Amino acid sequence: MADLIPSHSPTLDSALAMLAGVREAAAAEGLALAAAVVDAGGHLIASQRMDGTPLGAPALAADKAYTAVLWGMRTGEFMESTQPGGVDWSYPSTNPRVVVYAGGLPLYRDGQLVGGIGASGGTAEQDEACVGAAAKAAGYDIDA
Amino acid sequence: MADLIPSHSPTLDSALAMLAGVREAAAAEGLALAAAVVDAGGHLIASQRMDGTPLGAPALAADKAYTAVLWGMRTGEFMESTQPGGVDWSYPSTNPRVVVYAGGLPLYRDGQLVGGIGASGGTAEQDEACVGAAAKAAGYDIDA
Amino acid sequence: MADLIPSHSPTLDSALAMLAGVREAAAAEGLALAAAVVDAGGHLIASQRMDGTPLGAPALAADKAYTAVLWGMRTGEFMESTQPGGVDWSYPSTNPRVVVYAGGLPLYRDGQLVGGIGASGGTAEQDEACVGAAAKAAGYDIDA
Amino acid sequence: MADLIPSHSPTLDSALAMLAGVREAAAAEGLALAAAVVDAGGHLIASQRMDGTPLGAPALAADKAYTAVLWGMRTGEFMESTQPGGVDWSYPSTNPRVVVYAGGLPLYRDGQLVGGIGASGGTAEQDEACVGAAAKAAGYDIDA
Repeated sequence: MADLIPSHSPTLDSALAMLAGVREAAAAEGLALAAAVVDAGGHLIASQRMDGTPLGAPALAADKAYTAVLWGMRTGEFMESTQPGGVDWSYPSTNPRVVVYAGGLPLYRDGQLVGGIGASGGTAEQDEACVGAAAKAAGYDIDA
Repeated sequence: MADLIPSHSPTLDSALAMLAGVREAAAAEGLALAAAVVDAGGHLIASQRMDGTPLGAPALAADKAYTAVLWGMRTGEFMESTQPGGVDWSYPSTNPRVVVYAGGLPLYRDGQLVGGIGASGGTAEQDEACVGAAAKAAGYDIDA
Repeated sequence: MADLIPSHSPTLDSALAMLAGVREAAAAEGLALAAAVVDAGGHLIASQRMDGTPLGAPALAADKAYTAVLWGMRTGEFMESTQPGGVDWSYPSTNPRVVVYAGGLPLYRDGQLVGGIGASGGTAEQDEACVGAAAKAAGYDIDA
Repeated sequence: MADLIPSHSPTLDSALAMLAGVREAAAAEGLALAAAVVDAGGHLIASQRMDGTPLGAPALAADKAYTAVLWGMRTGEFMESTQPGGVDWSYPSTNPRVVVYAGGLPLYRDGQLVGGIGASGGTAEQDEACVGAAAKAAGYDIDA
């Protein structure tokens, strides 16, 4: 099958384990977050909104996970480059699902991009810390 | 606070219990489904896509749950009325998230509408049977 | 890696071979078509518009390929079910990229969904015949 | 036919030659790019995504080619003028397909605008260098 490129994505169980991890990390900090895990194609596997989380958070969490998969990068990496004068200036306006602040991470396994995870509800740094801890605990790398 | 209307929605734990119930019911039938639970405002609480479910299913599952909450009705109840000549003809075209076939159910508790649940991936009847069983097991009524 | 689900998608070379096949099949019938191949996540790999093809065709070709991947089905299979009285009545209005007439095919290899191919510019039947011939020649199955 | 304005656009063969050129130039630099060629009306002729290119790249490549045709300019020329205080400030927000950083080039022949080409996946400078080399090799000028 030299004409096919292999890819992998998290199982639902693995995605649920990550979301449980986000919830635990958020609760430990007294935060209420929404979080989402997407597959290697950016498609939703699972999403959860903790009690008390703002209604706008689930969509942002999913869009952060999607953005991370689109480029295999942390969403926060786009913050500087999309500012006035940055090399990606105006990029967000071309895709309404692109989020450029922290809280979305690519999921790598053995150097291969296998999905993405995102959270929303805290500060961007808190969101990223919670998903990062959960991804790591589930055996995923954030860098290729 | 006579100027405020009380409302109730499923907790995340209750939503997850329902999604686990959908998964169990689907697996027992050899089905792979996506399912979603929304609150009394139609906003996503939790969503899950079983391994092997078509990629188009999660959006439909969430839209079915949303549609059920919009009117407190089973989505399948709109099938006849939205046909050419029906009293709700053209309604779906006014809201792109409205789904008119079975698989989305309102969630009632003590006669009050508290949320919605939807599934996609099987036939509309299979979808509805699985979410119905899960909602009932979690203590929700489908009718007011 | 029991927590990961494997997937495969066509290489660019395989996608280009299919598009060359569509072009050859279309030319043999005196047709001018646009065609597109997407990966297992519905993302564009390659797209071509033959000289003289209507400008509206490339977007439809890509959307047909995308629709085929969303459900692992031929787009034409949705034609009846989305008609008035059909079980999927109103489905297209919930997703603006869904196409329900023939010309989009899922691509299977060893029973696994690996991508989709679509064409536009002829009749729906001509579109489907051309992409079907090209997919088969490149070693893909249309049915699981 | 003094009431008609003649126009020319690349044939599919010419577009494919350019995309093959982009691929060769990118591979020589160890890059994985998506590239697209559009006609004198900004409509897609052909698009290709090299194996391993980020999923977000094809849309940007096509939008860069489209932007270059809209004004007959290199996309990078809009970078300064669209900054806060610049003469084109707010222009991108009026058209979600406008890209203002390098990587999209107009295609001229005998001083006439005949199409556009764009790439994404590397730095904006790498993208522009690869499409520029491919356009030149296919006999197109970048300036009127």
